[in-house]
Amino acid sequence: MQLQMKIFCSIKLNAYQKDYLRQNIENQNILFQDEMADPLHAFLESEICFGNVDRFWVEQSEKLKWLQLESVGFEAYSNLNKDLTITNLKGFFSVPVSESVIAGILSIYRGMDKLICLKEQKKWIGASLRPHLRTLNGRKVLILGAGAIGTQIHKLLLAFNCEVKLFDKYNPIAHYAEKETLYADIQLFDIIIGCLPETIDTVHFLDRKMLDKIKKHAVIVNAGRGSLIEEGALVQKLNEGHILGAILDVTNREPLPLDDILWDTPQIILSQHTAGGFNKEIIEKTEVFLANYKRFIKGEKLRNSI
Amino acid sequence: MQLQMKIFCSIKLNAYQKDYLRQNIENQNILFQDEMADPLHAFLESEICFGNVDRFWVEQSEKLKWLQLESVGFEAYSNLNKDLTITNLKGFFSVPVSESVIAGILSIYRGMDKLICLKEQKKWIGASLRPHLRTLNGRKVLILGAGAIGTQIHKLLLAFNCEVKLFDKYNPIAHYAEKETLYADIQLFDIIIGCLPETIDTVHFLDRKMLDKIKKHAVIVNAGRGSLIEEGALVQKLNEGHILGAILDVTNREPLPLDDILWDTPQIILSQHTAGGFNKEIIEKTEVFLANYKRFIKGEKLRNSI
Repeated sequence: MQLQMKIFCSIKLNAYQKDYLRQNIENQNILFQDEMADPLHAFLESEICFGNVDRFWVEQSEKLKWLQLESVGFEAYSNLNKDLTITNLKGFFSVPVSESVIAGILSIYRGMDKLICLKEQKKWIGASLRPHLRTLNGRKVLILGAGAIGTQIHKLLLAFNCEVKLFDKYNPIAHYAEKETLYADIQLFDIIIGCLPETIDTVHFLDRKMLDKIKKHAVIVNAGRGSLIEEGALVQKLNEGHILGAILDVTNREPLPLDDILWDTPQIILSQHTAGGFNKEIIEKTEVFLANYKRFIKGEKLRNSI
Repeated sequence: MQLQMKIFCSIKLNAYQKDYLRQNIENQNILFQDEMADPLHAFLESEICFGNVDRFWVEQSEKLKWLQLESVGFEAYSNLNKDLTITNLKGFFSVPVSESVIAGILSIYRGMDKLICLKEQKKWIGASLRPHLRTLNGRKVLILGAGAIGTQIHKLLLAFNCEVKLFDKYNPIAHYAEKETLYADIQLFDIIIGCLPETIDTVHFLDRKMLDKIKKHAVIVNAGRGSLIEEGALVQKLNEGHILGAILDVTNREPLPLDDILWDTPQIILSQHTAGGFNKEIIEKTEVFLANYKRFIKGEKLRNSI
């Protein structure tokens, strides 16, 4: 049976990565989407899929037994009426995302955003910048979301002596579980970091009402989903100088169109949905697939089944 | 006696900071340099000085009993043949400098340097940046200098699971004490961080011979003194792409003249000698002075006497 099993691979791999996959799955029929004249046909012939294909394709398939996503998010595949195992990359991005979050906060606090532009302008301002710098040490931080990313950010912030509180509706380690309670406490925090998935509860979680209560010179980070923040209200707070800075890895519109006001708003770092990226990202995703594949052929339970 | 004692204050304070100092030293005669018609005369009348005055002034004084520096460095006041206590700000800058060092490294690894420029250009490159990003997690790091700054950087790097080795000629906790040993091991490190004072041993410590042996895509940080690095060799390694990036808080020439090649060298973050700065810097320096002042009037031993 195994010799005839087809694996459809929709994740984009380069020649080296394809070879790596082939070497680790001997005698299997791997169908790379970018090599197929009729990719949908190839997909419908496959028992396994590695990569995020169109939901409509999945609905049509009568052979698919296992779909290994290349993302943590799986909203697009919810409520499929199929006898199908779907696995995601839960936890995969926690190290790079947490480092991008700290990179962004420290850029704002330590003036790296200004200094990087000053180098382009060949302009030395030196000592006059010093009174405008801040330190992360000892700050009060609220992390929205106590999943793999939120808890990794928490760990890093403890080294900077931060006082960290977590918000999470489902994880019992969190200090806050209700948005209503946060309206009262939100002004306590120097830094608010969003790493929540998109659900009916999280859309515009940071709404105008919340942003109106925020501490002066707070820093906002969003590394979850763009819909978390009411962007118009955030832009206003930044223009007024009430918020010191925002680090947005995700935005309502991506790619951000040229006419979006975020481009022109001061004190924003736009990390362009790169926070999860790193040079070994694709090969390590392939490793995750291969480890699950070994379980699959032995009939074992797959990791991070959703 | 105390009522007549004069305090010369050469550190630049604003009106609020001057008031704060006055309120905490009742009945004392505080002479602020920027308010004096003849500052040298005022200095020569003073028993105490807060701030780094010209060495030549100190040599002339017959009344000065205590000089509180506003720096860690005290090279300018060595070998004074005077009955005088000099105190410095040892340890004062370890938190801000260590945070600027991590900010710089993460800027390079997480692409913040690129992303900050892209925002100015309103250019979205998104996913295409991801394969060029790196993570700090698990990196091998060499810290040159195991003083207050080096040990604070060490502490922060441990949260990122880094494997850290220290070089220090005098601190027994260091793993390396001899430059010669480092020539053999230098290629092991992903990141090399300089936070050494300037001495005859540290000038051009990172010379061409050392830089020639450095690991490909290493990151170099200098938060000590500009003379540590042979800048010509560094520029060459950066232009060749051998070194991934350099974060220079200090340079051979400061302020950096417009014709300096460092402005035009790629992959350099120039933090313009701001790494020690923070918005409460002056008021906290004043606190250090006041704490020592209380010891001084009680005849107790002063902190950080050199």
